[in-house]
Amino acid sequence: MRLRNIPGASEEMLVNPFVIQNPEQYKGHWSEHICNGKPLYIEIGMGKGQFIMALAAAHPDIFYIGIERYSSVLLRALQKMEQQPLDNVLFIRMDASTITDVFGTDEVERIYLNFSDPWPKDRHAKRRLTSKEYFQRYDAFLKENGQVEFKTDNRDLFDFSLEQVPLAGWRIEACTFDLHHDAEMNPGNVMTEYEEKFSALGNPIHKMIVKR
Amino acid sequence: MRLRNIPGASEEMLVNPFVIQNPEQYKGHWSEHICNGKPLYIEIGMGKGQFIMALAAAHPDIFYIGIERYSSVLLRALQKMEQQPLDNVLFIRMDASTITDVFGTDEVERIYLNFSDPWPKDRHAKRRLTSKEYFQRYDAFLKENGQVEFKTDNRDLFDFSLEQVPLAGWRIEACTFDLHHDAEMNPGNVMTEYEEKFSALGNPIHKMIVKR
Repeated sequence: MRLRNIPGASEEMLVNPFVIQNPEQYKGHWSEHICNGKPLYIEIGMGKGQFIMALAAAHPDIFYIGIERYSSVLLRALQKMEQQPLDNVLFIRMDASTITDVFGTDEVERIYLNFSDPWPKDRHAKRRLTSKEYFQRYDAFLKENGQVEFKTDNRDLFDFSLEQVPLAGWRIEACTFDLHHDAEMNPGNVMTEYEEKFSALGNPIHKMIVKR
Repeated sequence: MRLRNIPGASEEMLVNPFVIQNPEQYKGHWSEHICNGKPLYIEIGMGKGQFIMALAAAHPDIFYIGIERYSSVLLRALQKMEQQPLDNVLFIRMDASTITDVFGTDEVERIYLNFSDPWPKDRHAKRRLTSKEYFQRYDAFLKENGQVEFKTDNRDLFDFSLEQVPLAGWRIEACTFDLHHDAEMNPGNVMTEYEEKFSALGNPIHKMIVKR
């Protein structure tokens, strides 16, 4: 994603009602304090929020939290929320590496990872959101039968992820190398901004669903 | 593999002591009649037999059966056996599609698939040895904790297989896109004839280990 610093974005994060401040304070208490008892689905690296907000609009019985590292990107989602507010989605501005400080045992039912940063250098492999190190983090807060859904157009990242899943002791529940032409996995697919642009060029989207 | 018809190959299959005649007769009785109580590992599409014979020599406590469709190819393995006989490996000349007529419940502990025919046309997908249809066949005779080990240099076939495994309800236990440079999966790797030639060109070998 092209990143452009937007003046005032960081400050907006601190005052916008849709951004959760000090999310660590809710660890172990998301259900009663934030989600009204609804199942919690999160997207790590939500970008401008098109995907998670479309899901939230379609599934009022689920509570969604979008996590994004960059204030300037998250700001776009906040602008959409002001135009069309939803009462079952909130956002956190943070780096995912500290996510286990935020969510406790069994608090999350589903994790979406869409077009995650590939961190192409080998020495940065542990930063990839589908590394075995990250699966260990997810272990700490994903419910027993919860799942990770991962989409990408980056073939190298997808291959890496296919290798990491069994190394982490997880299970590939479903896998396709061409999501938009997959009769089983495509129905119900909600596209991200990036996915719309990229797939319009005729390039395949890869997707896996992973469980423990 | 280049196939050349060798006159007399078919006839040799009917009389060679290392080729099991009418293997269906042993269904349900492999352990007592053939394997002397040893665990049974099979290779489907064994080609000229370098892989399975190296394994058999290294693991005298395992019984191996190599299956090959083409008499002219299997003949090469028989010639090797005459020079260097092994008492824990035998061969079957058959098409794998009828394999459930040969092996019964829990009779096989491991299945090796090496550089299997990719059957590149979509309408032939069910003939691929890693199709979900074949995994259903393996279900009928693979032991509870048994495994399928699959190697190939064919990326399309490997991708297809990655999609089929979860569709079949099986589990990818380990996966690498570059076996010869994989610190966990490469040690102990026994190369096939084809693998030696192909990897010498610097091309990667893909491998997965699959369980139920």
